[in-house]
Amino acid sequence: MSAQPTAVVLLSGGLDSATILALVGDQGYRVAALSFRYGQRHSRELDAAEALARAAGAERHVIIDLDLRAYGGSALTDDIAVPKGRSEDAIGEGIPITYVPARNTIFLSHALALAEVTGAADIFIGVNALDYSGYPDCRPEYVAAFEAMANLATKAGVEGTEPVRIRTPLIDLTKAEIIRQGVGLGVDYGATLSCYDPPAGGAMVHCGACDACLLRKKGFAEAGVDDPTVYAA
Amino acid sequence: MSAQPTAVVLLSGGLDSATILALVGDQGYRVAALSFRYGQRHSRELDAAEALARAAGAERHVIIDLDLRAYGGSALTDDIAVPKGRSEDAIGEGIPITYVPARNTIFLSHALALAEVTGAADIFIGVNALDYSGYPDCRPEYVAAFEAMANLATKAGVEGTEPVRIRTPLIDLTKAEIIRQGVGLGVDYGATLSCYDPPAGGAMVHCGACDACLLRKKGFAEAGVDDPTVYAA
Repeated sequence: MSAQPTAVVLLSGGLDSATILALVGDQGYRVAALSFRYGQRHSRELDAAEALARAAGAERHVIIDLDLRAYGGSALTDDIAVPKGRSEDAIGEGIPITYVPARNTIFLSHALALAEVTGAADIFIGVNALDYSGYPDCRPEYVAAFEAMANLATKAGVEGTEPVRIRTPLIDLTKAEIIRQGVGLGVDYGATLSCYDPPAGGAMVHCGACDACLLRKKGFAEAGVDDPTVYAA
Repeated sequence: MSAQPTAVVLLSGGLDSATILALVGDQGYRVAALSFRYGQRHSRELDAAEALARAAGAERHVIIDLDLRAYGGSALTDDIAVPKGRSEDAIGEGIPITYVPARNTIFLSHALALAEVTGAADIFIGVNALDYSGYPDCRPEYVAAFEAMANLATKAGVEGTEPVRIRTPLIDLTKAEIIRQGVGLGVDYGATLSCYDPPAGGAMVHCGACDACLLRKKGFAEAGVDDPTVYAA
């Protein structure tokens, strides 16, 4: 029997990456989880990521300090108001102000470094093309281009060892399908944090009105699964 | 007449990126320079980068803190000895221990973020396929793949605005050719630092024996240009 392969998992502490973590564990991978302190408005999602990695028995959890505020240009890292109470149509339209320039590219580049030093051939990222159609770096064609680049960027590309694969098991799923899958794998969604702008009142309280909260609420409702989230509104 | 375009320049403080900075200025770009404090053994090259950016009149110089030591695997960031006194053949062969996993991919990803927020369509990087043939992420096919990915990653890819170009004007030049070009543009090479392992004895002193120093010495000799560098050996 060959050794257990290692997978790098980009872990934000949110619903999607928690589901990925469970999927990857279920498939028998050893997990090297990777999170970022990137100047987001709140760091509660990092606390959630740490707890999730621990609970999943991840072999390694690297948290990289990365101050994306130096560039500016996003409501997630700047003093720009996070939009609240938007309609579903508005959420699906255009590039949202919560888009962080080149964020997934930066995150995947770091994952590539971690994959190279841990010998992992698989990098998992919880991007989703349905709910986040406005984010250019959540599209399948982007992911494929990153993978092609990655295989020229690293030792594997020169030495002809196993190619790197960017794995996006959630890319075509609705939030409801993701939640149903996660529930089947025993994910504790009460331990995940999606909110862009969590209010005071407790580590895991969600605002209930930002785009991420609205998609989360709707996902649980459509999945017919009890939503364990505490929403302020 | 259209407004002066902005270029993002990856600036290490070494000979190659100083030449790029001069080239870009000569071509009439406004410069947004980008450097990294990435856990390299010494930060003197950052001091050099700051002085070079100032002297070149760069409009903006962003220095990103980025601890690549978290991944390990390179003599430039770990407690692995930097090789000294290697032959030219040895330098050209295989992937050197000074290769930092996915470094150019990480650097270019950050440059892409800076390009997006400054509206720059051109990202300049001083990679060189001749002297650094052992680095997978210095090859033209890698650069082309990064560019293709970048144009799917950002708003430009969705909104159809001007595509991003990864510009590598030094990629096919020998070190001697780079130096001759820089001298023609008035680059002060005495203000650049190439050494992987600079010894005590002054901010700009080079060890004279690591791969980078050997290539630098040879470049000046072949260019027939007085070498302003202070070498310890």
